[in-house]
Amino acid sequence: MTDASLVDGFLADLRPAVTWVDDHIEIIDQTKLPAELAIAELRSVEEVVDVIYRLAVRGAPSIGSCGAFGMVVGLDERQPADRPAALAVLDDLVETIGNARPTAVNLSWAVSRVRDAAGKGSDVAAIRSLVLNEAQLITSEDRDACTQMGLFGMKELAGINNIMTHCNTGRLATAGWGTALGVIYAKAASGEPVKVYASETRPLLQGARLTTWELQDAGIDVTLMPDGSSATAMAEGRVEAVIVGADRIAANGDTANKIGTFTHAVNAHYAGIPFYVAAPLSTFDTSIATGAEIEIELRPNHEMTSWRSEPTAPQDISVWNPAFDVTPGKLITAIITEVGVLKPPFEESISDAFKKGDVS
Amino acid sequence: MTDASLVDGFLADLRPAVTWVDDHIEIIDQTKLPAELAIAELRSVEEVVDVIYRLAVRGAPSIGSCGAFGMVVGLDERQPADRPAALAVLDDLVETIGNARPTAVNLSWAVSRVRDAAGKGSDVAAIRSLVLNEAQLITSEDRDACTQMGLFGMKELAGINNIMTHCNTGRLATAGWGTALGVIYAKAASGEPVKVYASETRPLLQGARLTTWELQDAGIDVTLMPDGSSATAMAEGRVEAVIVGADRIAANGDTANKIGTFTHAVNAHYAGIPFYVAAPLSTFDTSIATGAEIEIELRPNHEMTSWRSEPTAPQDISVWNPAFDVTPGKLITAIITEVGVLKPPFEESISDAFKKGDVS
Repeated sequence: MTDASLVDGFLADLRPAVTWVDDHIEIIDQTKLPAELAIAELRSVEEVVDVIYRLAVRGAPSIGSCGAFGMVVGLDERQPADRPAALAVLDDLVETIGNARPTAVNLSWAVSRVRDAAGKGSDVAAIRSLVLNEAQLITSEDRDACTQMGLFGMKELAGINNIMTHCNTGRLATAGWGTALGVIYAKAASGEPVKVYASETRPLLQGARLTTWELQDAGIDVTLMPDGSSATAMAEGRVEAVIVGADRIAANGDTANKIGTFTHAVNAHYAGIPFYVAAPLSTFDTSIATGAEIEIELRPNHEMTSWRSEPTAPQDISVWNPAFDVTPGKLITAIITEVGVLKPPFEESISDAFKKGDVS
Repeated sequence: MTDASLVDGFLADLRPAVTWVDDHIEIIDQTKLPAELAIAELRSVEEVVDVIYRLAVRGAPSIGSCGAFGMVVGLDERQPADRPAALAVLDDLVETIGNARPTAVNLSWAVSRVRDAAGKGSDVAAIRSLVLNEAQLITSEDRDACTQMGLFGMKELAGINNIMTHCNTGRLATAGWGTALGVIYAKAASGEPVKVYASETRPLLQGARLTTWELQDAGIDVTLMPDGSSATAMAEGRVEAVIVGADRIAANGDTANKIGTFTHAVNAHYAGIPFYVAAPLSTFDTSIATGAEIEIELRPNHEMTSWRSEPTAPQDISVWNPAFDVTPGKLITAIITEVGVLKPPFEESISDAFKKGDVS
């Protein structure tokens, strides 16, 4: 079986997280999972920003894809009269959509890339065509990047069958089979035995709601565990490695990812098991030297004081609810990208990956 | 202000978690907090076992106290005809109540202690009187032990004002102002500035529901944080120390406590901040050399797949839901007891504490 047929066969019957349909975006509303597989249609910029902010669409690459298609939605909605007006609309959308969530670099990267592509258009129709084309390209490139990450990761993690992951990094989070989960899907698609421990990922429970759902749906052995149990899972030998995605990676390998990641990395370090990050090059922000420069989004209190209709804490309590944390590069065994597996020292391997475009 | 007036003044207006009233037990039903301060009356062994199993009463010392009073309830319920029948009932209750939860040593310790005291009774009435007296003694001793732990801990943590804690170890968990939270209450009652970070404590959210509630109720500055954020809270300098309670401590200091504790301890070790355990001598089980011998209770799946009426995960997913973990003694800076602060090597300091009954 070829690599391409492996992933095509795997994804054939599965609905993507973000799809462009005729004149609008369709997303799986991830806030409704696992109870309901609900599709939301997005026909305005307000709706695009809202679903990104509410995490109805989430995962750095999926947000990038949704934001890129949101540029088409915005252009159609605002109906600029001529080329300068169209470019001004796009400039405005780069800000409006790009700022819906601050930490994931893919979102601002995707909308800026779409804006840059639009510059070559001579009139409004040409600009719209370039914008749509670029959004589709971003999406298909992400799908291909996922395929490659899965295949590189499968080789890197050869012989490791019991794997812990955090948050959700699969087909709900990307245009393909995922980043960290892509590695797991690739192993499963190749017939390797694989057992996954998914940490809940408080407060929004992306691990409990989404990772369990999509792995179970794909027939992969998955067990849900509390976030705080990682030290024990490792000490008992239940997990042999950790693999996570990323929202932004600095030039030295410091990695912003869902809150809880840093804690799992410290525990893996203590237990002496490998800790992998899987992320496409679009997630790297080589303009920042270290993770200290990464802005961490603080989320609202209600995410921690209620679960849907049920209170989980006193309603008026003080809450510290950072959406992300920054795992120091020194705790990361390797970063799996679509151009190969980057090893420490990351300053060099990341720099090489961007210079050569190929480190495999 | 004397030590005694400090704690008496603090507890004067606050309802205890477990109270003996005439002929029955009254407990604060902790599953209803923080939405409602509901009192449950226990008049049968079945009810006693049920509230312990459901965690309506929880915290190792509170469970011990409730179990001890449960021996009186059981004796009244079964109405033995003579001394041998009464002692046989108590033997049976030691098993029935003592096994309601396996990890906390206080429960089996308390019911066994009550049973032993009953042996001196010459008839059923005398036995009942001895049983009730012993249960009240266990409760008042726990209250006094909490006072002492608070005062010893206050000295040990002098100058440390930003403190993280896990689960709930205060006046809901004990007959006094608590073990780990007792140290915080003592600092606050003495007028020291203290800011507490309470981790949520999935899956049953004792930190989110109970610790925030009781600290806020006592006017202490408390902020709720996700369990997975401890590495970041430490790296940012938000917390200077961690203090937790315990459910069972082996002869070498290995400490069973609520799941998540070990992870916080590993993070504290990595961050280079002190990690304290506060527990009375009744929590120590010197019959076991190390934590490897501690049985870890596995709890039902539904605790992780739903929060009350709201699903949190696919309902049929595999779940690993250990109630406790075991933190290696080597990660613990000191263990604060009612007879003084035990320091490593714990084999020696714990042995000395039991030999001398005083290590202060």
